Amino acid sequence: MNSRKKIKILVGSCVLLGYLTTPTYAADAITPEQTTYVFNTLLFLMSGAFVMWMAAGFCMLEAGLVRSKNVAMQCTKNIVVYAVAGLMYGLVGYNLMYPADNWLVSNVLGFFDIYVHNAHDAEDVAYASKASDFFYQLAFCATTASIVSGAVAERVKFASFMWFSVILTALIYPIAGSWGWGGGFLKDMGFKDFAGSTLVHSVGGWAALTGLYFVGNRYGRFTANGRSVPFRASNLPLAALGCLILWLGWLFFNGGSQLALGTLGNASDIARIFVNTNTAASTGVVGCLLLTYFRYGKIDLTMVINGALGGLVAITAEPLMPSFIVAGIIGLVASVLVVFAVELLEKLKVDDVVGALPVHLVCGIFGTLIVPVTNPDASFVTQFIGIVCVCAFTLVTTAIVWKVVSLVSGGLRPTLEEEIEGLDSAEMGMDAYPDFVRNMK
Amino acid sequence: MNSRKKIKILVGSCVLLGYLTTPTYAADAITPEQTTYVFNTLLFLMSGAFVMWMAAGFCMLEAGLVRSKNVAMQCTKNIVVYAVAGLMYGLVGYNLMYPADNWLVSNVLGFFDIYVHNAHDAEDVAYASKASDFFYQLAFCATTASIVSGAVAERVKFASFMWFSVILTALIYPIAGSWGWGGGFLKDMGFKDFAGSTLVHSVGGWAALTGLYFVGNRYGRFTANGRSVPFRASNLPLAALGCLILWLGWLFFNGGSQLALGTLGNASDIARIFVNTNTAASTGVVGCLLLTYFRYGKIDLTMVINGALGGLVAITAEPLMPSFIVAGIIGLVASVLVVFAVELLEKLKVDDVVGALPVHLVCGIFGTLIVPVTNPDASFVTQFIGIVCVCAFTLVTTAIVWKVVSLVSGGLRPTLEEEIEGLDSAEMGMDAYPDFVRNMK
Amino acid sequence: MNSRKKIKILVGSCVLLGYLTTPTYAADAITPEQTTYVFNTLLFLMSGAFVMWMAAGFCMLEAGLVRSKNVAMQCTKNIVVYAVAGLMYGLVGYNLMYPADNWLVSNVLGFFDIYVHNAHDAEDVAYASKASDFFYQLAFCATTASIVSGAVAERVKFASFMWFSVILTALIYPIAGSWGWGGGFLKDMGFKDFAGSTLVHSVGGWAALTGLYFVGNRYGRFTANGRSVPFRASNLPLAALGCLILWLGWLFFNGGSQLALGTLGNASDIARIFVNTNTAASTGVVGCLLLTYFRYGKIDLTMVINGALGGLVAITAEPLMPSFIVAGIIGLVASVLVVFAVELLEKLKVDDVVGALPVHLVCGIFGTLIVPVTNPDASFVTQFIGIVCVCAFTLVTTAIVWKVVSLVSGGLRPTLEEEIEGLDSAEMGMDAYPDFVRNMK
Repeated sequence: MNSRKKIKILVGSCVLLGYLTTPTYAADAITPEQTTYVFNTLLFLMSGAFVMWMAAGFCMLEAGLVRSKNVAMQCTKNIVVYAVAGLMYGLVGYNLMYPADNWLVSNVLGFFDIYVHNAHDAEDVAYASKASDFFYQLAFCATTASIVSGAVAERVKFASFMWFSVILTALIYPIAGSWGWGGGFLKDMGFKDFAGSTLVHSVGGWAALTGLYFVGNRYGRFTANGRSVPFRASNLPLAALGCLILWLGWLFFNGGSQLALGTLGNASDIARIFVNTNTAASTGVVGCLLLTYFRYGKIDLTMVINGALGGLVAITAEPLMPSFIVAGIIGLVASVLVVFAVELLEKLKVDDVVGALPVHLVCGIFGTLIVPVTNPDASFVTQFIGIVCVCAFTLVTTAIVWKVVSLVSGGLRPTLEEEIEGLDSAEMGMDAYPDFVRNMK
Repeated sequence: MNSRKKIKILVGSCVLLGYLTTPTYAADAITPEQTTYVFNTLLFLMSGAFVMWMAAGFCMLEAGLVRSKNVAMQCTKNIVVYAVAGLMYGLVGYNLMYPADNWLVSNVLGFFDIYVHNAHDAEDVAYASKASDFFYQLAFCATTASIVSGAVAERVKFASFMWFSVILTALIYPIAGSWGWGGGFLKDMGFKDFAGSTLVHSVGGWAALTGLYFVGNRYGRFTANGRSVPFRASNLPLAALGCLILWLGWLFFNGGSQLALGTLGNASDIARIFVNTNTAASTGVVGCLLLTYFRYGKIDLTMVINGALGGLVAITAEPLMPSFIVAGIIGLVASVLVVFAVELLEKLKVDDVVGALPVHLVCGIFGTLIVPVTNPDASFVTQFIGIVCVCAFTLVTTAIVWKVVSLVSGGLRPTLEEEIEGLDSAEMGMDAYPDFVRNMK
Repeated sequence: MNSRKKIKILVGSCVLLGYLTTPTYAADAITPEQTTYVFNTLLFLMSGAFVMWMAAGFCMLEAGLVRSKNVAMQCTKNIVVYAVAGLMYGLVGYNLMYPADNWLVSNVLGFFDIYVHNAHDAEDVAYASKASDFFYQLAFCATTASIVSGAVAERVKFASFMWFSVILTALIYPIAGSWGWGGGFLKDMGFKDFAGSTLVHSVGGWAALTGLYFVGNRYGRFTANGRSVPFRASNLPLAALGCLILWLGWLFFNGGSQLALGTLGNASDIARIFVNTNTAASTGVVGCLLLTYFRYGKIDLTMVINGALGGLVAITAEPLMPSFIVAGIIGLVASVLVVFAVELLEKLKVDDVVGALPVHLVCGIFGTLIVPVTNPDASFVTQFIGIVCVCAFTLVTTAIVWKVVSLVSGGLRPTLEEEIEGLDSAEMGMDAYPDFVRNMK
């Protein structure tokens, strides 16, 4: 065989080998980069859907915990606040929170480019569809407002609460969020808040706190001589349903915050996050159950619910790094904080209808503070600074907004008469349960 | 170096290069085509599951909106109608709707091949598992029947409604659907109805309209001298829950109608659909809230719920092409239509218990008509023709079915005595809330 | 052209060809094996989330079916039992059930390695994230305990039930499960139980049976002279909601049990499982509806619900192999079994509050027995042996546990006075519906 033949055979084999080992793609077959893009987009859409649905969780939780005469109003607030958040966050908040390279006002009207990646020939496939990211982030924004609605339930005028929510979802939440997630100074400092113990739950909690200050307690909740009069939750199975909806949604709230699914590492991390989130909720339940049983001699469903939610809030700042045992301890400590925070609010005569402060504020702070225990990239000082900054900003801005809304809308509260009658009747002219309320007043 | 050596080195490098850059697949590793197939199948299964679960949304919505004495019946109807749809659509409807290349009767009994692609060596991997497609389509079919059950609630005999639903899900919905989606003449004409504003919601709406005609109003709903007597919804938080379940399901109702997830473009499109769907629902809520407040001076939860649903129905015909702002406008217009349609039905003394006509029929027509505004491939004339054809077909066929069912089952309505007593007691011998109904009659 | 030039051109072409046809991966692009891994992990996480949420389904079903005076307690039990299952299964059960190569005690404390695959450089990518597998399996474990809580509702002390649940989820369920799924002798024998008709539902059913034996009937449910006094379900729409939540969850309960999504065959199989699961539930509904109507002349919502659940339990042992028609027949037979089992329990004066034995035990046995009809790899003898082994093991162990718990906690039941008052008041000091219960006692 001469050299030519050999060459031909060698080259032929080489071509054949290349042909055989190269996968034959259809012209429009999905590439590996696109596979990751589709996975990531799917993560945002699926997670966003069930975080969106946490609106149903808050709706049921609050509808179950308020008195019958305010149930229809509480449902209305929860549906409308989700709608308002969806619009304000789209019109203003999203691009305020993720301003990319500039903060110009022109950029704030963000809806102009949330569909950027939707072209079939999108060039940047490293992340996910921007619209899916927007949808996911929007669900977080709505959560913040839902937290407030529960705290000040039963004695704030519908319109006042809605004006407050407009500003909260358009400006306050997005600005605080941008500090930690959008490329702001907290992010630069190394502040770690994985899924928003501080940036979502504490923001909601601080806003609830100023709301409680400006709105005041429900009529009759504490008597003139300082005695506490417990107001009974009107529909406990709805509250239980709300808790379990929130539990479900939280898996995606934390899991989706991994922000990517389409690699082996990301998928594994999300699995870990699911387990840790579920575990902290479980120990939160068990902790509140045992603690309230030993302190009061009774099993308390509302405390069990708040234990679950407190554990969930606490694990939200760092659901990835803890081990199973540590995640369980975080939930357990959170449950203890919830019980004592509820007692403290009783003593301070603060009327937080659904326990928003113990659950979202106290556990949010706790969860954020302990991130450095499991995450070596975090520092206690930075976490503390982050908490203080968000606290100061949210307290000041929400106080201003509550005050301005109060001035503009003639006070935040309905008349005493209307409050005693119930907002369902006073503001809506309907009853939540017209056929079977015995003692509505 | 002589030429032989050079050649050897070159060829060797070439082979080595091919080896290094070619991914080494395990023998059974997933190919790009299969990745797309799995994504598409996953889309159908996930979307199908949450569109299936819209049955729970309709169930809660209707259970909340009827009077206590008919709640158990309404729940039963919703569960049974989903089951009936699942069976009839599998036995007859699916292959009637997607007849592939022939319309032979032998092909109608479609269950014979819905598992076609389930063999591990399936040859056609361009789409998705046929069983997943069937499951997804089935969930749509069930929706149509659920729409009717709400409109004629509280005064149609269980058996009559079920016989009607059997025909609706086995024949009427599939035939109308095949015109637009299954390769029929509307599809050929260029009729655009992305996820079924007309083919699902208006079909349900027209069927509800003939149902209202043949069944008539609830006893006492309009007095002899024409005064309207509002019947109060018995459990508003359940109605709110139903609304939020439907909102959740609708993301998948519209998103899944992209019919493919497994490419960059499809994933991005679904994200866009999610945002537009959510936005139209949000403006629907805000629109109904404001309009009813300014017209009646009251906040109305049932109108807020119907605003959300109206916005969702309207965006369903074209959830992909509108921008964020346009999607919002579509929902807003839908909310106005809902309010005025509800008022019109009051004036016409049509007793549509849950507002099925304003929501599903009026907004379905509106959404279908305006597709050409955002989709250049659609034409107003074709959209109009499609609406008229579906209207004519559904009105005629459902009228015949209601009439025949009435003749066969001795009238569509229970006796007046039974209606006043409530269907729960008359047809079921049970109460929905035996422990706490005060004024059941 | 001389030979050198030709060689250069050929080799150059060859390199170019290799370059063009080889996909250019980013350094961290996802490989086909990893794509399958991500799909499988996603299947476990998504399925696990909605099987977890079956806790909400059981909670609503049971809250709806018990009397008002025990609703809050029933909700508490369902939330706490899910939390307890999550902790006990993580601390002990999971590694007991899947002991890999040894059964040493050190291996039982399984939480030490559920995150094994979470390292970004995980080496074994053939399956899915181990944490995702754990999460999915955990949801199954919780289901078992939920079944028991419904059967013995309204007359077992909270603490007694919880101690029982701790042992059930830590030891009994995992050991029985390991026999069939974890590499135990039933698996070796060829026992087939796809998603747990026996290993989940019958285990729960047998545990409920011994519970009913040791706990006894509710006071007044059967009079001294043997007359049956029906106790009315307090909130039927909640029961309907629970049924539909369970129906949704069951799609993922069975679909996820395919244990893999990331290949063409697996995706297609899951689609088939979804359809079969849905079909068996549908015929279960229709079967119970018709049978109870013809036997009692009434439409019975609770039987319709149990028909759906019975069909779902029956198809769970083999949801993949049946055709559409056969799946329907399985659900139909299950519905007949449910009706007659309910009647039989009435005659035997066994007070199973939610119908756990007819649904989970009877249909679980039936479903397991008939696997060989559609699955040629199964044998009737082996299926029978498996059922008997699980029966014997669960009856003996749960009987011991009930007895020990009874001795330790001073009896399983509250006092007669407390039972008549209702557990909400006696053990919790709260009412589920304080505003509108008319006749709570």
